[in-house]
Amino acid sequence: MDAAVAYARENAPRFLEDLKALLRIPSVSTLPEHQGDVEAAAEWIAENLRHIGMEHVEVIRGEGHPLVYADWLHAAGQPTCLCYAHYDVQPPDPLDEWITPPFEPTRRGDNLYARGAVDDKGQLVTQLKALESLLQSGDRKLPVNIRVLYEGEEEVGGEHIAAFVSQHPDRLQADFALISDTEMFAPELPTLCVGLRGMIYTELEVRGAKTDLHSGMFGGTAPNPFVALAQIVCGLKDRDGKILIPGFCDDVQKPSAEELKAWHSLPFDEEKYRRDEMGAPALVGEKGYSVIERLWARPTLDVHGVMGGFTGAGAKTVIPAKATAKISMRLVPDMHPEKAFRQYSDYVQAICPAGVTVSTRLIHSGEPSVLSTDNPWIRAATRAMKKVWNKDTVFIRSGGSIPVVGDFARHLKIPSVMMGFGLPDDGIHAPNEKFHIPNFHRGIESVVRLFEESARQG
Amino acid sequence: MDAAVAYARENAPRFLEDLKALLRIPSVSTLPEHQGDVEAAAEWIAENLRHIGMEHVEVIRGEGHPLVYADWLHAAGQPTCLCYAHYDVQPPDPLDEWITPPFEPTRRGDNLYARGAVDDKGQLVTQLKALESLLQSGDRKLPVNIRVLYEGEEEVGGEHIAAFVSQHPDRLQADFALISDTEMFAPELPTLCVGLRGMIYTELEVRGAKTDLHSGMFGGTAPNPFVALAQIVCGLKDRDGKILIPGFCDDVQKPSAEELKAWHSLPFDEEKYRRDEMGAPALVGEKGYSVIERLWARPTLDVHGVMGGFTGAGAKTVIPAKATAKISMRLVPDMHPEKAFRQYSDYVQAICPAGVTVSTRLIHSGEPSVLSTDNPWIRAATRAMKKVWNKDTVFIRSGGSIPVVGDFARHLKIPSVMMGFGLPDDGIHAPNEKFHIPNFHRGIESVVRLFEESARQG
Repeated sequence: MDAAVAYARENAPRFLEDLKALLRIPSVSTLPEHQGDVEAAAEWIAENLRHIGMEHVEVIRGEGHPLVYADWLHAAGQPTCLCYAHYDVQPPDPLDEWITPPFEPTRRGDNLYARGAVDDKGQLVTQLKALESLLQSGDRKLPVNIRVLYEGEEEVGGEHIAAFVSQHPDRLQADFALISDTEMFAPELPTLCVGLRGMIYTELEVRGAKTDLHSGMFGGTAPNPFVALAQIVCGLKDRDGKILIPGFCDDVQKPSAEELKAWHSLPFDEEKYRRDEMGAPALVGEKGYSVIERLWARPTLDVHGVMGGFTGAGAKTVIPAKATAKISMRLVPDMHPEKAFRQYSDYVQAICPAGVTVSTRLIHSGEPSVLSTDNPWIRAATRAMKKVWNKDTVFIRSGGSIPVVGDFARHLKIPSVMMGFGLPDDGIHAPNEKFHIPNFHRGIESVVRLFEESARQG
Repeated sequence: MDAAVAYARENAPRFLEDLKALLRIPSVSTLPEHQGDVEAAAEWIAENLRHIGMEHVEVIRGEGHPLVYADWLHAAGQPTCLCYAHYDVQPPDPLDEWITPPFEPTRRGDNLYARGAVDDKGQLVTQLKALESLLQSGDRKLPVNIRVLYEGEEEVGGEHIAAFVSQHPDRLQADFALISDTEMFAPELPTLCVGLRGMIYTELEVRGAKTDLHSGMFGGTAPNPFVALAQIVCGLKDRDGKILIPGFCDDVQKPSAEELKAWHSLPFDEEKYRRDEMGAPALVGEKGYSVIERLWARPTLDVHGVMGGFTGAGAKTVIPAKATAKISMRLVPDMHPEKAFRQYSDYVQAICPAGVTVSTRLIHSGEPSVLSTDNPWIRAATRAMKKVWNKDTVFIRSGGSIPVVGDFARHLKIPSVMMGFGLPDDGIHAPNEKFHIPNFHRGIESVVRLFEESARQG
């Protein structure tokens, strides 16, 4: 047996204890009172990297929460892998729904429960333990060159890492990235994510009268910004889920027949998805496309919140001067955020109802991305997972966005292998988040194997 | 000259000083820290009522802020008038927009500036001073029987007075009510308000998934409660302002040709109204009806606020489990709140989009009302104002609601004479609220004359 894999299996109980230690640090990036905990988590990781033999370990401070960098660059002639994960976590609310406290990691059955168990500390630690297993066994060398870059503000927008990647491409030179922050399509199904949706996240403001008005004195003559907003939203997307912005879908790349065939052979139970994952009376969305196509290969438009007017208890008869909505659109290859925002903004002006004015503002955006499964690093990851799971890898996309993938592509010109070991029912961002413990250990082995298989590509 | 009118003119400067004293008490009913001030205002009024010769003066305490009651019932064989006004005021915010402090009443030109100057302390004091002028001059008698009932929570819903009226109709027996809480259509234009819109104020809740969802992971398949809410709002009212609820407008009473003619001969400048009072790019509303008809004789539907989802700074990609809207409809004679709410609720269910459920809740309601101008008390008020202003009275309606008018009609079976002396530019509820001082004094005389003219009806 491979020395590193043997080491990982011998040390499995300790590896789990080390993960628990990191999970006990409540590194909630969005809450100022946890600033010290976020720092402590960064220091814990840096210390671990030093301990296992990584070099140039540095906690990089700047605005926002720190990055942790390390490297090991002695595999002459071999490719370089840039390893990414994040050590910050979502707030644990609502606290009273946790069976055991969010920052007291607890094993129940085959699962480890804690905030961050799978998103993303557990997955970050699969990388740490894979590196340790290779550096502390056999000839104590890594088969490829490695850089690690961990961030502490993924849950709050990741501005620091985006700036760092754009400013220091030289310090991050690599052939490909390993992103450990995704999930498997189903239990026991080794999965690589090869496509992400992009997005534009906007704020749309509708203004009517110069000041708030009394709905008795003015109702029937004064424009109501909420009603106008409703009219605009209904103008943007029809009741069948079709986005009505002219030209918006022109650049949408249709998945190949082969991709569609593979997607539709995945084990997916639409009724179970509706009932257990969503709990809504019915699925909605664009007619003529399957659920998986709608999630992975079609743009969407959602409203996230509406501000303005009276929102207290009881009744206040105000016609507010303005209403503001948070509206985002997910984009798919080959759509472009700037073009999409322009089309959206122009159309909103065109359909603006009488009596109000409307303005749009782009809050942030990200490019959609898709990776060919013919990519050598994807092929290496496929071979690696076959060794661990003894099954062929399925290729999926994600309906979400991982902005760092776009940053790596744009500034480092490298593809990202998104190999993750979460399960659909892990409950990320929710109470009782968990990590399936066998996936933690097989994840470590998968990362070991990925590094070994990548070496042969060099 | 009438002895009471002569007394009022002689004492005009002191009357204004007395009003200022009441205005200095910051009786803001909605702010708990002003609880003591609200009490102090009630006591000030009670003391004044005792001082001028009213009887059975009582500060009636219960839940909420006190009522002030008094009577004088020695006009044998004459009718009884129930005088209503309120002594609480709106909060003065935004404070920095006041030229002089809101609770330091200040005269500039012909106006007295203070919070409550016209809404409603100034108008309340017109009643006090009319009673004093009659009780302290001539034969020191009132020409009719009088009860006064002043409330301290008109600006916060008036629950206390509604309960009191329904529980003690015996203590409030009267032939008609005088409501001093309205305004004149234009300066120098004696005005009686003879119609009010009613309303139903509702909360509409749309629920989609059982929990908040990530818009990347679920966008394209999950129902979005905000989008569904927009579709429902667009289903309730078309872009021309027509309410689409089946049967909703069936009971709307069309104003008579004579009324319409009178309304359309009122001095009203639509462009000035749009520009100065509203400041919106355009007026909106139901096609085929004039502005005045839309305000006084047509039902409306407005959205006052929307709750749910993400409303912080920046971006959060949530598809919320639910969205809630505050939606009210103004009703006109002969619509009925219960029937209107039932029609609305049924229709909302009928147009509920797929993927969500919707529920409606009635927060409060009020009946619309309209009074015949042939009513003897309206005729008495018309004669009274002719004597003071030397002009014919115009009859208007209000687009708003005065709930106490409905309470008096329902529980005491009496009509309300809404005779008020505010001006359209008095800025009620806004910074620099004012009362036109000549209107204060002519208001006192008008109330004196109303009592005298009513006596002849007895």
